[in-house]
Amino acid sequence: MSDQGLFIVLSAPSGAGKSSICRRLLAACPEIEFSVSYTSRTPRPNEVNGKDYHFISREDFQRRIDQGEFVEWIENYGHFYGTSGKAMHEVLGKGKDLLLDIEPRGAKEIKKKFEDGIFVFVLPPSLDELLNRLKKRGHESPEAIKTRFTQAESELKEVLWYDYTVFNEDLETAARELIAIYRAEKCKTNRLHGKIDRFFKSC
Amino acid sequence: MSDQGLFIVLSAPSGAGKSSICRRLLAACPEIEFSVSYTSRTPRPNEVNGKDYHFISREDFQRRIDQGEFVEWIENYGHFYGTSGKAMHEVLGKGKDLLLDIEPRGAKEIKKKFEDGIFVFVLPPSLDELLNRLKKRGHESPEAIKTRFTQAESELKEVLWYDYTVFNEDLETAARELIAIYRAEKCKTNRLHGKIDRFFKSC
Repeated sequence: MSDQGLFIVLSAPSGAGKSSICRRLLAACPEIEFSVSYTSRTPRPNEVNGKDYHFISREDFQRRIDQGEFVEWIENYGHFYGTSGKAMHEVLGKGKDLLLDIEPRGAKEIKKKFEDGIFVFVLPPSLDELLNRLKKRGHESPEAIKTRFTQAESELKEVLWYDYTVFNEDLETAARELIAIYRAEKCKTNRLHGKIDRFFKSC
Repeated sequence: MSDQGLFIVLSAPSGAGKSSICRRLLAACPEIEFSVSYTSRTPRPNEVNGKDYHFISREDFQRRIDQGEFVEWIENYGHFYGTSGKAMHEVLGKGKDLLLDIEPRGAKEIKKKFEDGIFVFVLPPSLDELLNRLKKRGHESPEAIKTRFTQAESELKEVLWYDYTVFNEDLETAARELIAIYRAEKCKTNRLHGKIDRFFKSC
């Protein structure tokens, strides 16, 4: 267990501020790799293949599903999204730590298949505030906002099985809490057996 | 559980730098109370009654043992030291968090009697370094140093049952880790049920 990397799964409804918190964690702890998901949708203008997503065709995605490559996958708004189990095993097997940004259903699949990860849910300060934030984005129709809010509400109920909950009342505090969770988990005695063994052999 | 305070038990052998790390935690998180132990030894010139220890007579200490007041107590170098279970219950019952600085045997007693605490062990960088630090203090005889080192060595083996291990290679990093452990534990979902309930009622 000590030589395996640690993975953190972060989930949050749209509008909870997850992406900003993730960026802060990766900036503070550059030793963490970000898990790049696969998707069958086309890239948006600012998105980079291999960084934001691995953009692949629908046929390629379907073939990988059939081959059991994805530890979790979902079809959302007509597009596939998934996480490669093989890529996860490779990174963790090298002893590197990994951050995954995954919605609750996918997170639950990962929890079933991988031991020893940590699961963090980011909540907005309140449901009203979540709705405000979705409206403020300004690039979606009222119907799209309503759909997102309804989806968010149902996802929120999943928070109870997550190990940790971070309330994003302000970004600095929320990011500090996520960084603390990562650093604390690295100090868990059961992750440090190798280092403790070396300590006792040091004299 | 959500309304109860959280307690952190910190253990370390003499020379591991525990006191400095405790001070940093209390400075960074002033909401934490420090648990003041009882002792039958006389105060040293710089020690303040009620702050460093509650200094009481040997007879008073014995009476309190007989009344079952101490959740843990020990006789060390001819003096009694103990933690009042009543005081712990009072602080935690008010929802306040508590830091306890206790050697491993006492920590184990507390683990048996109180649920939901966190146990952190501070290790020096190596056994050689521990011996160096004990020698550098300069105010003890070689025999006293040897006794302390032997006691430290046997205490160190207790590290394996602690939840977290902090290696004090440098003070800043070790203090940062302890602060992270405290902050992370405050984000555990099972400690936040009250806040999560209020969240769902907020709309």
